[in-house]
Amino acid sequence: MKRRDFLAAGTLAMATAMVSPQLFAATKDKPLQVLALVFDDYETLDLHGPVEMIGHMKNVQIKLVGAKSIIRSYQGPKVVTDISTDSVTPCDLFIVPGGLGTRKLVEDEELMTWLRKQVSVSEKVFSICTGSALLARAGILDGINATTNKMAYQWVTGLARQVNWQPRARWVDDGKFLTSSGVSAGTDAALFYVSQLRGEVEARRIERLTEYHWNHDAKNDPYAVS
Amino acid sequence: MKRRDFLAAGTLAMATAMVSPQLFAATKDKPLQVLALVFDDYETLDLHGPVEMIGHMKNVQIKLVGAKSIIRSYQGPKVVTDISTDSVTPCDLFIVPGGLGTRKLVEDEELMTWLRKQVSVSEKVFSICTGSALLARAGILDGINATTNKMAYQWVTGLARQVNWQPRARWVDDGKFLTSSGVSAGTDAALFYVSQLRGEVEARRIERLTEYHWNHDAKNDPYAVS
Repeated sequence: MKRRDFLAAGTLAMATAMVSPQLFAATKDKPLQVLALVFDDYETLDLHGPVEMIGHMKNVQIKLVGAKSIIRSYQGPKVVTDISTDSVTPCDLFIVPGGLGTRKLVEDEELMTWLRKQVSVSEKVFSICTGSALLARAGILDGINATTNKMAYQWVTGLARQVNWQPRARWVDDGKFLTSSGVSAGTDAALFYVSQLRGEVEARRIERLTEYHWNHDAKNDPYAVS
Repeated sequence: MKRRDFLAAGTLAMATAMVSPQLFAATKDKPLQVLALVFDDYETLDLHGPVEMIGHMKNVQIKLVGAKSIIRSYQGPKVVTDISTDSVTPCDLFIVPGGLGTRKLVEDEELMTWLRKQVSVSEKVFSICTGSALLARAGILDGINATTNKMAYQWVTGLARQVNWQPRARWVDDGKFLTSSGVSAGTDAALFYVSQLRGEVEARRIERLTEYHWNHDAKNDPYAVS
């Protein structure tokens, strides 16, 4: 099977077949290090859906990184950052949520530079919703199969034509880069990541624990852009 | 139709028929005041799922209330409280999430006293997951139709036998009290609240905006206790 077909298929069966021995090994020695970017007017569920699912794996540390100590979500509640964007932090997973705040941030050259450096020390990068706009604008997704929020599809895809944007995908996994569709798609993609990293049994355990209904098929995208 | 049958039915059609003129009026004059309790080891999605959905309505203010200024979720990331539990705050909606932290908190008599007072100045009270354990233990749900996390059903229901616990319900709406099943059920119940308050069109707008798949039938409970 060609690599492109493999990526396009994106079924759970394939996901579990793709468990990475390197990433899996990280769980034996030290906690899985997860870093999530936050900025004012980030979208609440973009961040906290994945945090919920990934945070239920054993031996995981999730930290927030941002330009200041307190960050306000679009919906109002505020989070505290653990790490500053003054430096970069090697991690197993780097999460980039979206939200209204990305509209301004795509013009922030300092952030673009930091993003490129942070991605270079991250084992895997996971964007949710318009988080992909930040990565795309920084040139990080050039030549990569990726998706984004379908409600903001024209805006995001217009920022970087060199990305192989996928109009029909709940999420797209292309090696180092996992990009999800809008808001709640991030929660489904997070369980895909769990299954990829630690197997489907673990993903199903967390689905049950959170009384969730996991849309586990990347091709099942009810909001696809036709 | 008898009141009990009406409550047991819990369909969307009924939900929209139940739009409260009082609550609806609140949107015309001042922002809808939403207050959410947070405590260490609260469950991330219990809080942030509802915050996501409710926070997309127009003219809403969501504030966090807690015993200290910084609160750590079970999954790690920290939030900042806006208001202290030293006093009570009149509000339109009071949200009580669950999580591992409730296991200790059910023994906290000071919190129980505060909860009773806070509920008395709240127009509507919405618990998610084991958040209902706190309300039940405080005697607030006595005689009320309610539900809770199905993974912790024996523990929660054992705390207060005077509650009319419902073993099969994604959520239960009983007048002032809306109680949801575990974790992700809170997100579905939050959209029910939106539909009750501002109509189904608004709930469907937010569902689409967040690329969500709303389980809009309270009777559709895949994790029911048989």
